[in-house]
Amino acid sequence: MKEKRSEGAKEKKTALWAGRFTEATQPLVQNYTRSIHFDKRLAPFDIKGSQAHVRMLNRQGILSDEDAGAILKGLGQIQAEIESGEFPFRDELEDIHMNIEFRLKELIGEPGGKLHTGRSRNDQVATDLRLYCRHVADCWKSVLRQLVEVLVTRAEEHRLDLFPAWTHLQAAQPLSWAQYFLAFAEMAGRDSERLDSLLQRHSVSPLGAGALSGSSIPLDPDYTAAELGFSEAFWNSYDVVGDRDMVLELAQAGTQIMLHFSRLAEDFIYLSSTPVAWLELPDSLCTGSSMMPQKKNPDVLELMRGKTASVVGHLNALLVLVKGLPSSYHRDLQQDKEHLFPIVDIVSDSLEILVVLLAQAKVRVDRAHRALESDFLMATELAEWLVKQGLPFRTAHEKVGALVAFCVARQIGLKDLTAEMMAEVIPEVGFEGSQVFDPGIVLEGRTHRGSTGLEPIEQQLRKWKRWLAE
Amino acid sequence: MKEKRSEGAKEKKTALWAGRFTEATQPLVQNYTRSIHFDKRLAPFDIKGSQAHVRMLNRQGILSDEDAGAILKGLGQIQAEIESGEFPFRDELEDIHMNIEFRLKELIGEPGGKLHTGRSRNDQVATDLRLYCRHVADCWKSVLRQLVEVLVTRAEEHRLDLFPAWTHLQAAQPLSWAQYFLAFAEMAGRDSERLDSLLQRHSVSPLGAGALSGSSIPLDPDYTAAELGFSEAFWNSYDVVGDRDMVLELAQAGTQIMLHFSRLAEDFIYLSSTPVAWLELPDSLCTGSSMMPQKKNPDVLELMRGKTASVVGHLNALLVLVKGLPSSYHRDLQQDKEHLFPIVDIVSDSLEILVVLLAQAKVRVDRAHRALESDFLMATELAEWLVKQGLPFRTAHEKVGALVAFCVARQIGLKDLTAEMMAEVIPEVGFEGSQVFDPGIVLEGRTHRGSTGLEPIEQQLRKWKRWLAE
Amino acid sequence: MKEKRSEGAKEKKTALWAGRFTEATQPLVQNYTRSIHFDKRLAPFDIKGSQAHVRMLNRQGILSDEDAGAILKGLGQIQAEIESGEFPFRDELEDIHMNIEFRLKELIGEPGGKLHTGRSRNDQVATDLRLYCRHVADCWKSVLRQLVEVLVTRAEEHRLDLFPAWTHLQAAQPLSWAQYFLAFAEMAGRDSERLDSLLQRHSVSPLGAGALSGSSIPLDPDYTAAELGFSEAFWNSYDVVGDRDMVLELAQAGTQIMLHFSRLAEDFIYLSSTPVAWLELPDSLCTGSSMMPQKKNPDVLELMRGKTASVVGHLNALLVLVKGLPSSYHRDLQQDKEHLFPIVDIVSDSLEILVVLLAQAKVRVDRAHRALESDFLMATELAEWLVKQGLPFRTAHEKVGALVAFCVARQIGLKDLTAEMMAEVIPEVGFEGSQVFDPGIVLEGRTHRGSTGLEPIEQQLRKWKRWLAE
Amino acid sequence: MKEKRSEGAKEKKTALWAGRFTEATQPLVQNYTRSIHFDKRLAPFDIKGSQAHVRMLNRQGILSDEDAGAILKGLGQIQAEIESGEFPFRDELEDIHMNIEFRLKELIGEPGGKLHTGRSRNDQVATDLRLYCRHVADCWKSVLRQLVEVLVTRAEEHRLDLFPAWTHLQAAQPLSWAQYFLAFAEMAGRDSERLDSLLQRHSVSPLGAGALSGSSIPLDPDYTAAELGFSEAFWNSYDVVGDRDMVLELAQAGTQIMLHFSRLAEDFIYLSSTPVAWLELPDSLCTGSSMMPQKKNPDVLELMRGKTASVVGHLNALLVLVKGLPSSYHRDLQQDKEHLFPIVDIVSDSLEILVVLLAQAKVRVDRAHRALESDFLMATELAEWLVKQGLPFRTAHEKVGALVAFCVARQIGLKDLTAEMMAEVIPEVGFEGSQVFDPGIVLEGRTHRGSTGLEPIEQQLRKWKRWLAE
Repeated sequence: MKEKRSEGAKEKKTALWAGRFTEATQPLVQNYTRSIHFDKRLAPFDIKGSQAHVRMLNRQGILSDEDAGAILKGLGQIQAEIESGEFPFRDELEDIHMNIEFRLKELIGEPGGKLHTGRSRNDQVATDLRLYCRHVADCWKSVLRQLVEVLVTRAEEHRLDLFPAWTHLQAAQPLSWAQYFLAFAEMAGRDSERLDSLLQRHSVSPLGAGALSGSSIPLDPDYTAAELGFSEAFWNSYDVVGDRDMVLELAQAGTQIMLHFSRLAEDFIYLSSTPVAWLELPDSLCTGSSMMPQKKNPDVLELMRGKTASVVGHLNALLVLVKGLPSSYHRDLQQDKEHLFPIVDIVSDSLEILVVLLAQAKVRVDRAHRALESDFLMATELAEWLVKQGLPFRTAHEKVGALVAFCVARQIGLKDLTAEMMAEVIPEVGFEGSQVFDPGIVLEGRTHRGSTGLEPIEQQLRKWKRWLAE
Repeated sequence: MKEKRSEGAKEKKTALWAGRFTEATQPLVQNYTRSIHFDKRLAPFDIKGSQAHVRMLNRQGILSDEDAGAILKGLGQIQAEIESGEFPFRDELEDIHMNIEFRLKELIGEPGGKLHTGRSRNDQVATDLRLYCRHVADCWKSVLRQLVEVLVTRAEEHRLDLFPAWTHLQAAQPLSWAQYFLAFAEMAGRDSERLDSLLQRHSVSPLGAGALSGSSIPLDPDYTAAELGFSEAFWNSYDVVGDRDMVLELAQAGTQIMLHFSRLAEDFIYLSSTPVAWLELPDSLCTGSSMMPQKKNPDVLELMRGKTASVVGHLNALLVLVKGLPSSYHRDLQQDKEHLFPIVDIVSDSLEILVVLLAQAKVRVDRAHRALESDFLMATELAEWLVKQGLPFRTAHEKVGALVAFCVARQIGLKDLTAEMMAEVIPEVGFEGSQVFDPGIVLEGRTHRGSTGLEPIEQQLRKWKRWLAE
Repeated sequence: MKEKRSEGAKEKKTALWAGRFTEATQPLVQNYTRSIHFDKRLAPFDIKGSQAHVRMLNRQGILSDEDAGAILKGLGQIQAEIESGEFPFRDELEDIHMNIEFRLKELIGEPGGKLHTGRSRNDQVATDLRLYCRHVADCWKSVLRQLVEVLVTRAEEHRLDLFPAWTHLQAAQPLSWAQYFLAFAEMAGRDSERLDSLLQRHSVSPLGAGALSGSSIPLDPDYTAAELGFSEAFWNSYDVVGDRDMVLELAQAGTQIMLHFSRLAEDFIYLSSTPVAWLELPDSLCTGSSMMPQKKNPDVLELMRGKTASVVGHLNALLVLVKGLPSSYHRDLQQDKEHLFPIVDIVSDSLEILVVLLAQAKVRVDRAHRALESDFLMATELAEWLVKQGLPFRTAHEKVGALVAFCVARQIGLKDLTAEMMAEVIPEVGFEGSQVFDPGIVLEGRTHRGSTGLEPIEQQLRKWKRWLAE
Repeated sequence: MKEKRSEGAKEKKTALWAGRFTEATQPLVQNYTRSIHFDKRLAPFDIKGSQAHVRMLNRQGILSDEDAGAILKGLGQIQAEIESGEFPFRDELEDIHMNIEFRLKELIGEPGGKLHTGRSRNDQVATDLRLYCRHVADCWKSVLRQLVEVLVTRAEEHRLDLFPAWTHLQAAQPLSWAQYFLAFAEMAGRDSERLDSLLQRHSVSPLGAGALSGSSIPLDPDYTAAELGFSEAFWNSYDVVGDRDMVLELAQAGTQIMLHFSRLAEDFIYLSSTPVAWLELPDSLCTGSSMMPQKKNPDVLELMRGKTASVVGHLNALLVLVKGLPSSYHRDLQQDKEHLFPIVDIVSDSLEILVVLLAQAKVRVDRAHRALESDFLMATELAEWLVKQGLPFRTAHEKVGALVAFCVARQIGLKDLTAEMMAEVIPEVGFEGSQVFDPGIVLEGRTHRGSTGLEPIEQQLRKWKRWLAE
């Protein structure tokens, strides 16, 4: 009982805001409210923000050169301690901000108590988070670039190789593997643009907004903004302390990335499934079964799909967190990091793995080519050929539909049709010399922009090489 | 039994894709798969897309002048029928695309069968959706502008009026109502920027991508892109038929708008709640109770908060829909409209209501001013004043905390402190002549950018007037 | 302008709660707050609740026999009008409750004003919703029964037919189609149990709770509870007016149903995809393509999967709606119906379609059987056989793994192994006479409960027949 | 380079499923796929499951007494190592199952290789998870009981104390604090019932289902089911390896708990907000501000609300994970634990904190009582009193509404009305001697079940004491 009390007393002393309080925080509460176990990740950004703040206070004549020097030296040492893993993180100090400020006072004494002049944790954490988000967006952009590079390489390699592409997972038309890979380059390109756009929109420093109204201390927010690499300082203190738009947008951008590649994961699981097998994954990206000795499972792809579910859940949590929250800062917002950080990790890890996976996955060209022969893949080509012979498209579509039904009933393919059979169903035109059932014609015959033809694919390759060169 | 069959036969004939089929679609299936009851909203955009397609086909020599003329005339008539409410929508024709094409054939006969040449519903609906999304983004931008206008007006009106602003819903510091209103102008400004950014990113026409691989018909996608007001045509047919990024981004932009104003709704519900009452809503925006005769309920605000939950749910549905979907078009995507459209309606209606609500809500200046006197709102000012007298901030914070505890124990306010009492807790400085407990000093004393001071608020007002003038 | 005013005046008169108001509700607000376009679905339950309420008021001496008789007669007429489609629904009357009460006054005059004695819309809508939820749960239970019936029939039919079942979508072990179908019977069985459980938990009538505190009128909530078929009346008025647990649980139960059958949809799309084709869907459950004449798309299954995304979104909206809502009734709750109703429709329609789909889907027994031969499906059987010969399982697993690698390198199957080859890798045992590579042994050799063996499948069939007979 | 290879080799050797593989798993993959950092929480349940499995294998004659004894001894030692924190967890061993099996072989040699006989990680993890879920449900039930106990105590204490309860956050009617607290007892009671129901529904052991089809080894699943405390063994192996219903239901039950108490959190934040202050939180449950010395913030309550957002996000992730997943086991399911575990922690911690919070929160009886006087709280009582004098309720409602408008215009309260004023608006009845404006009458005058009257509250208290005694 006595122990508890003295422990309580120690806590009271530790909390930097405890002046007004008569009872100590309960350990249960401490455990419930602390964030240090996850927000320590913000340490380098917190230090960077504090350094800029100190320099500004000094420049404004609020901190003496001596005090500023002492604080900057102390912050430097803290940074070194964190990097080397020697920093004494303390749960009872709640969060990374209090941990660093407390340590600073341990290291340099009284001047440490001047760091927080004209600042609140509200503008401090908003600044840390933005610096962190900017860092993450830059990293993602760089891996997306690598991803586009691999996709372009694979596309170049498989320009002439076709597979029976699907809609509704039903054989639709022959498609070049290059077109397949370049489709994902388009997605990665948009993902990268989205990051550019949010980097630009949120190049605003919150430092100086204080708790919610700014400060009576003559701060210079423009100076700290410039120091930290932002384009400008906040315009409205009340907005900026409760604003989590950048966190939400980064989470959305990350989710969109995962949505795109969850589709690739689904495709690849399908393509490498036992009865399809038009794609083969390297052993090094698969794992086995504890019971079934023959299994080679695409776990990485399944987890990419599963982790996309995680990301959707975390994004949802962020939306729910902000919905209906009174304006300005409320402690609910602490949870934003519990959901942003896993999104960041999942997206970063997945992009890295995708680079390797896409480089190593092996297209089983022969198996895919063999599959082109069956399944009426050329029916649309035939219909369009009939259009060129003068039939309205809707009539041509209907005729070819009837031809397919004719084949299905006889269990034959389009290629097996004799000229007589065709004439029976479509008496309007003659078929002699038509190449319309050769899958290869989609490469030659598709000339317009964006299609799976040879030239349009070359155009895409040129575009992406320019993009990579920029 | 016989009736069913002949009905089936009719269905079979109606479906424009039924050539290959031997059994008719069951009514149960028709009901499950149809989208005409909600996608009819796309009609004007579908017609616009078809008009561009026809002009292109004609220009490319695929459609004769005569056929093209007939189709364009037919489409014009359909447009008129839809606008006048006379268009015969038919559930058995599944969707808006088939309804229009079928009607076209009814109106102009055989040439109608040539409209769909080199086109699939896959690229068609992708085009319709993008045209629709662009239209919605433009509308939202325009109402957001009106909203900023009202917010600026209200801010100008209440520049000098303060209220006890909160963090954690606990009295924090005096804030100008102008700062409060302008915080939401910042949010609306970001919301508008986000729409600009997505309009720019998705200015890409999908028309010509066909089912997934383009077409062997010599289309000119660049021409249709220009006709429809897009910056360019698609680069990759396989990507564009399954791409719903613009839908997701518009949904996210809409959700972000609602998240912002759900916070305002929560604030206003609180501010007009019986024991607070610093704000009064006009009768015309409230409703009553069926049982309690005295009630004047802020239903509009509660519904705005509740509809934000709806929007979060619909956005989530869109994310789930796309997650793990195989690439290219799958019918699951039909559901995207079932979730995009309610988001559009909720955001549009809410923005419109907000313009009225913000214009009419009455700040109860006196009640709010009276509340400034209590609750230690000036404690931070005092601490910062002590910093100016030479105390380190952390020490000043602690001292003032002790002063507050001193007051709480005696049930008095900071203003009631005598010079002796203050000297007892803070012997370091003299207080004579200090204005530190007058709330009004936050207007004079806050001079730095973004704060709640008079000049920073003027800066904000100037910024927004420039923005509105652009 | 004048017109608007008089219109306003009319509105003011119509609203049954308008006594206290000085300004009329704006049309914009009316449109934003009305729910009549969706809550009209509650009409039969609302009438049932009112009938019980009137009978109770009469029994308690609060309503005279004459008044009660008039009201009951009026309610009967309203019910008839609604059933025949002649009821004059009015948007300006907000919701179904006000529409019915207003109509009642039109029909019977002053006594209509006594219906709402001791009642609030808060307890009224809570009662309506519970009656509705109970009705829905009963309907779902009945279709789930039909579903189990079909699954049992299909299982009986395919007891001896095997296919290469997967984990990780990779060929794993031979499985009886019966085991496959019965797995979904298990899910449907749990789904049904969940409905039983919520029906039991929420057999509590809210009628009499008033706005939030009950009434000073001497009501008899136990009587109305019994009249409406509930097990008991509410225990706490404040809880019951804001309680939406039953709505959430029904939504969760519906979501769970869709999750189960979205997995079946995914399976069936895969199984009927072109290169797999172990399953064939009837034409009547498929639709075609507008461009590709050969397509037969499993749209119904894709939509079932897509509508599951919708249901997840709607459930999420319901959770978000309730999260952090102050206790008792708030208008946000109106949105619950906007999300519950689509869930109900999707689940009901999907279950109905599943009954037909499962009855008609054709297992392509031969294709599936042929696939059993390849792909090392019997590797686990071999490992377990080695265990029976005395090897530790982990060693057996490793040996068989090596054997598979041996085959892969030589591009042969397990069946192609000669006795010598096997002896080379696994010298420990002799293989002569072993049946271990015959897929059929899984039917004979699996004897324990729950496995895919013949007898365990018979046990399951017996269990389900008992369940259906109950 | 060389190092990498040998490292790879080591990995290959470590993986218990690696017999078939020719390339080693990449470290990147290992990091992406491992779950040991979170699934170690399942260790005690995994060991329990293995012990039952070994005893069964021994009883069935598949394991010798000697082998079984060695394994059981080894498992005992592992359990001790885990409890003491000495167990050597290895990331390269993927998950808890492989870590334990590998350690077992280290400790006891070859017999360790027999543990996994007739078992797969698929049925193993399904068993572990169910045992874990049962444990969690039991824990929650026990804290919910404590919560009801505190709520009943607080209710008894404040039976006679009233506050102006709200709907729409607008003053509605006087309510006893006892009724308020008991409303949450109702919610906790339903939460507890829900746990009972899921414990009963999922009392099914998955052990013996193997990878998906059971085993050719003559296992006895009924025996292991009984050993592990389940009511029965699985009926269908294919269902049970991919079934995550229990995880979803526990997550839903936990979410429902949080939804309930997020409403209490919202209430308490409001009730203790500066201008309301009808409730006071103990210092020990609040924290301070880093900038504002006077702040005493309800962080615990805000975090409870924020963590509810987290829980909603995690539940959503679980739903998304399962949606559209092919049947049987897929690796996506590994992520279920990443979302279930945080839900468990949040719910457990929050319930524990609630017990303390509810015990210590101080009702400020006097402030709340003073607030009863204003705000027309007795308007409904007056209307119901008029009903008793013979007016139809709708007329009475309208009359009282007019009276309120009369007062609002004169800025007086109902209590300030003279007999003449009342007669002016409501000439129908005489008011002399009426007690209708004394808030206390709601305690006396409400007699029916479930209302806020004295007797109905006593009934509730009796009910809950019986419940607690059971």
